[in-house]
Amino acid sequence: MSCKLTDAVGYLINLERVQFSRFSLRRSPQIKMHKFSHLKYLPLMLFQLLLMVLFFIFVRYDGDKHHDLRGFEGTHVMIFVGFGFLMTFLKKYSYSALGFNWFLAAIVIQWAFLCQNFYHLKDNKILATKETLLEADIMAATVLITFGALLGLASGLQLLFIAIVEVAIACANFYLVGDILKAADVGGSIAIHTFGAYFGLGTSWAMKPHHKKTSTAPTATSAAVDLNGPTYISDVTAMIGSLFLWIYWPSFNSALTTTNSEYQRAVINTYLALASATVTTFVMSSVVSKHHGKLDMVHIQNSTLAGGVAVGSVCNMHIMPGGAVAIGIGAGLLSVLGYRFLTPLLTKWGIRDTCGVNNLHGMPGIYSGLLSVLFAALATSDEYGSDLGAVFGAMGGDGSRTATSQALYQLYATLATIVIATIGGAFTGLFAKLSFLSPLKDNEHYDDDVNWELP
Amino acid sequence: MSCKLTDAVGYLINLERVQFSRFSLRRSPQIKMHKFSHLKYLPLMLFQLLLMVLFFIFVRYDGDKHHDLRGFEGTHVMIFVGFGFLMTFLKKYSYSALGFNWFLAAIVIQWAFLCQNFYHLKDNKILATKETLLEADIMAATVLITFGALLGLASGLQLLFIAIVEVAIACANFYLVGDILKAADVGGSIAIHTFGAYFGLGTSWAMKPHHKKTSTAPTATSAAVDLNGPTYISDVTAMIGSLFLWIYWPSFNSALTTTNSEYQRAVINTYLALASATVTTFVMSSVVSKHHGKLDMVHIQNSTLAGGVAVGSVCNMHIMPGGAVAIGIGAGLLSVLGYRFLTPLLTKWGIRDTCGVNNLHGMPGIYSGLLSVLFAALATSDEYGSDLGAVFGAMGGDGSRTATSQALYQLYATLATIVIATIGGAFTGLFAKLSFLSPLKDNEHYDDDVNWELP
Amino acid sequence: MSCKLTDAVGYLINLERVQFSRFSLRRSPQIKMHKFSHLKYLPLMLFQLLLMVLFFIFVRYDGDKHHDLRGFEGTHVMIFVGFGFLMTFLKKYSYSALGFNWFLAAIVIQWAFLCQNFYHLKDNKILATKETLLEADIMAATVLITFGALLGLASGLQLLFIAIVEVAIACANFYLVGDILKAADVGGSIAIHTFGAYFGLGTSWAMKPHHKKTSTAPTATSAAVDLNGPTYISDVTAMIGSLFLWIYWPSFNSALTTTNSEYQRAVINTYLALASATVTTFVMSSVVSKHHGKLDMVHIQNSTLAGGVAVGSVCNMHIMPGGAVAIGIGAGLLSVLGYRFLTPLLTKWGIRDTCGVNNLHGMPGIYSGLLSVLFAALATSDEYGSDLGAVFGAMGGDGSRTATSQALYQLYATLATIVIATIGGAFTGLFAKLSFLSPLKDNEHYDDDVNWELP
Repeated sequence: MSCKLTDAVGYLINLERVQFSRFSLRRSPQIKMHKFSHLKYLPLMLFQLLLMVLFFIFVRYDGDKHHDLRGFEGTHVMIFVGFGFLMTFLKKYSYSALGFNWFLAAIVIQWAFLCQNFYHLKDNKILATKETLLEADIMAATVLITFGALLGLASGLQLLFIAIVEVAIACANFYLVGDILKAADVGGSIAIHTFGAYFGLGTSWAMKPHHKKTSTAPTATSAAVDLNGPTYISDVTAMIGSLFLWIYWPSFNSALTTTNSEYQRAVINTYLALASATVTTFVMSSVVSKHHGKLDMVHIQNSTLAGGVAVGSVCNMHIMPGGAVAIGIGAGLLSVLGYRFLTPLLTKWGIRDTCGVNNLHGMPGIYSGLLSVLFAALATSDEYGSDLGAVFGAMGGDGSRTATSQALYQLYATLATIVIATIGGAFTGLFAKLSFLSPLKDNEHYDDDVNWELP
Repeated sequence: MSCKLTDAVGYLINLERVQFSRFSLRRSPQIKMHKFSHLKYLPLMLFQLLLMVLFFIFVRYDGDKHHDLRGFEGTHVMIFVGFGFLMTFLKKYSYSALGFNWFLAAIVIQWAFLCQNFYHLKDNKILATKETLLEADIMAATVLITFGALLGLASGLQLLFIAIVEVAIACANFYLVGDILKAADVGGSIAIHTFGAYFGLGTSWAMKPHHKKTSTAPTATSAAVDLNGPTYISDVTAMIGSLFLWIYWPSFNSALTTTNSEYQRAVINTYLALASATVTTFVMSSVVSKHHGKLDMVHIQNSTLAGGVAVGSVCNMHIMPGGAVAIGIGAGLLSVLGYRFLTPLLTKWGIRDTCGVNNLHGMPGIYSGLLSVLFAALATSDEYGSDLGAVFGAMGGDGSRTATSQALYQLYATLATIVIATIGGAFTGLFAKLSFLSPLKDNEHYDDDVNWELP
Repeated sequence: MSCKLTDAVGYLINLERVQFSRFSLRRSPQIKMHKFSHLKYLPLMLFQLLLMVLFFIFVRYDGDKHHDLRGFEGTHVMIFVGFGFLMTFLKKYSYSALGFNWFLAAIVIQWAFLCQNFYHLKDNKILATKETLLEADIMAATVLITFGALLGLASGLQLLFIAIVEVAIACANFYLVGDILKAADVGGSIAIHTFGAYFGLGTSWAMKPHHKKTSTAPTATSAAVDLNGPTYISDVTAMIGSLFLWIYWPSFNSALTTTNSEYQRAVINTYLALASATVTTFVMSSVVSKHHGKLDMVHIQNSTLAGGVAVGSVCNMHIMPGGAVAIGIGAGLLSVLGYRFLTPLLTKWGIRDTCGVNNLHGMPGIYSGLLSVLFAALATSDEYGSDLGAVFGAMGGDGSRTATSQALYQLYATLATIVIATIGGAFTGLFAKLSFLSPLKDNEHYDDDVNWELP
């Protein structure tokens, strides 16, 4: 008897859902999208064809220059396996994490390749080498960090729209930081990590839902909240991403160095900062634990990496190996405390940040920017020798910048990045809310079912 | 009451199964295999000992030549992690996918090392370098592609038998393509991908079951059909393989280049073709979707890689970066449409292809062969300079081939490979059906339980 | 009615557990630890700060020396992804396996960096290069092998205590083997693998529980026994580790070679020994199977790697490629038989070895040590040429060791390592039992719940 009752109730609920969705189809603008949902990604195909044409017009091979670039393969692993698997931690969003990470990165590496090199045309042509491919990979990180903030909160079309706009702005900021301000930022902690994080937070703030208190909202929200968490297995697969990011971070930070001693300093400093940040993360995760000092996988998967971000802008400088260890300790502290106390506050203020990119990329990125101010101010040609011009592009020659001046430019670069990223992200988020990008309803958050055939 | 009834029925079913299996043991030729099932892989041990003897007789170190071969480590990852994990997508065949991928590859790299180098003996000795190890790794890909077609359909002994025969034929074909016809095929899209795929389809066709319509068949088939699909987790672990294959494909395609500019072109073109194939795959997966434009993991895991196959034979040629993007778009289209429309047809015709290798390696391989005809015909010494002889072995010297002649040889190589692979595969499949290789019954398909202690 | 009864019993059991745990808190020395459990890892923070100070005092950059060290990136993957994921095979210990692997390795690479280089100070300074980072990574393997023996049996604090003590002893033994005895051990099979395994077995023996036959013990034990095994998924994630260890083992074994031909021999021999050990492992796993020749994942995940250990100490010697294949066959045999017959015996004798490190690192390590005795005895300057001094540091110059003498020193190194490791491990284990390191109760074994917030 009770079984039949349950069945009947279930049937009615299902019926209601079907009717509800029919109803919403009838009056919402999404109706067109739904009808043409098979073709929803066709604009991307057109964009891909446009990219093809631009490649035919502008891009040529550059012979055998930079063919043995160190760090390319490792960075490639970080972008596609690292970021992709790190974001599989949600219980029902692993397909989207891996899939959209790949989709976004595949389109961004082509688009960023063009955007970055339009600032460095030679005879109106872009000359392709492994180095320019690497720079495109690195720019993909920016977009994937932003994706981390919005994980589970944006539709595929929104993500693709945001990515394409973000790359254009981020490449302009990259040019500002590196070529105009001539700030040292070899590991990209300013122009990649800080930019990606605050662009993401800006977008997230602009896209925050205006709750209209409909009758179905409570149920929907509670379902969504349930999906905003891991399973035992999804936390294990996320560790694949986390560990590969950690392992190849020294390759990432050192990839764009030019001299061998600069390269080796970047590897050593990144290795040490990551190690000390990891130890600090484990200790702090236990210290701030809510239950008997138990470790929290969110900290372990993310804050361990903060050492790599924090040392990024200064890893090729003479910071001493002990300095690298100290910087890592600070990064672990900052990041775990951020996850524990700041992220819940931001969420309350309507700035959702699913992966906590503010704690992994944002604050450690600013920290790295400020460290670069310090170490630029301390730089002397006695210490750096012939490496001075390699590390600080605007120093080392005749009539070049003083250390104090370089320090100021490091500060400008950091501040400019924060401002451009936040404002750019907010505006992009406002446009991303338009209905032709099929924004998600509350009950579609963190759910693969929206985008994927599920087994 | 109902519980007891169910229990009783369950008991009877189990009893029946036990009796059925006893019965089959009594009268089938498998009875001997079953009795000696602990020793079923002993012939492989003898083969391993034979390999050892051959290594003692024939193989010597070649000093320090080719010790810094680029692409070796990446290709090694592709063979063992890439292919292995890509095939874990079935719900109850992950152990077999990973295990037999490893078992097959471990025996094939030794056997292929000998088979390939028997064509290039120096003083009756094989001189081992990292380059010869790499070539053995690459040949392993051929066998693993064939394994992909037969995934879940062949017993361990059948797979091992097929692998050993296939390597002998594939190495002869490799010699024909590279040394006799002197076709350009740096990424192996003709001699590795096309060969492996059509050998697999030939074998699959020859091994297709002749249904005798026994009374137990329907149940068995329905169980088998249930296992021929993924779980949520198995699709995530398959992405490990897919992504590592994608990431290291530029290393694979460029591994056997000789000059630095040829090497760099191979990396750039493969990188771009993969990126555009990936974007196209996502768009097309939605376009051909059966349910509201939802993405299909089968396409994402496989068709994204078709760009790497399609550009394989031509990646070191002057195809222009824009050409690489265009080739990738074509590959994504071809592969997704193949999965959606051709594979179901082939299955209906009795050619099962569990991983759809025809769509990932077969058709994109032929496509690459035809592209190599085109770009060979267009090759001029003006454009290639001193690289001409490096890319096309038979061109560039005095009295060497014309571009048109080279184009014809590219065509011959593609056609010869398709014919040799298909016929070779079909004959191998006929032999593989013999009972001493313990072919699987229908209800043993796609099931780890046949081969593994399960937890 | 029966349901209600079950519920009531369950309630009572839970109640009893709560009371029991309250009771134990009241009278056990753990009460203090529990009160301060949030701060339990603070001593590690102090140790991290001490490391920072030591780095500031002692460590400087060494310019551009050894900046292109081969094998560094691959070894880095082995330590963090390889060992980490290999140990995720237990059903409810994946977080601890990955987490403590990372925590331990992150602290050990800093500590080992200092311990190893204190024996080679220049002007009271340690000069950091990629080579010294690599050596620290390699030393981390020692500790992680020991962790494998104790997997699920030791608390976090015990593991960290053991790791810190072990590194100090292992670095002293490493100095003894390499610098005092001048034994050849390029792949570390003696000083890393054998040491780590027997240190672990010594510790395990010393830490074995003295059962006091309390009334709750049987239940607790049975729960623990249940957790000491895999799930279908955890065996798949363990294969990630296993395969990456296998793939990069040639990089590991060849990383510290100096000449190019020595390097290439190390790569070729390791590659072949791994391949033949893998084939042998599959065959033998079926031969010794308890159920109809079915394969056992424990063998596949571990014994396949024994070839890399067995060839480690001799991989850069002139063992012939056929010799490498033969050594791998022996390693596969030894390791599978060890898992099948020896590990159960050791467990019965109170020496628990969760991962079976005796079969993967211990016995194959001794085997490699004995092989190094043989091949040292056979070494002639005719065969090695200018490589003789590179392979055997004490041979090749004027008035240097004879082959027989070198063979004896290889034997001494192997024996000394076994003795120092076992005794060192046993003493460390005795100290590790002290209550301030919060040893686990029987019902806390193999359980992530002790250390982690679980979803």
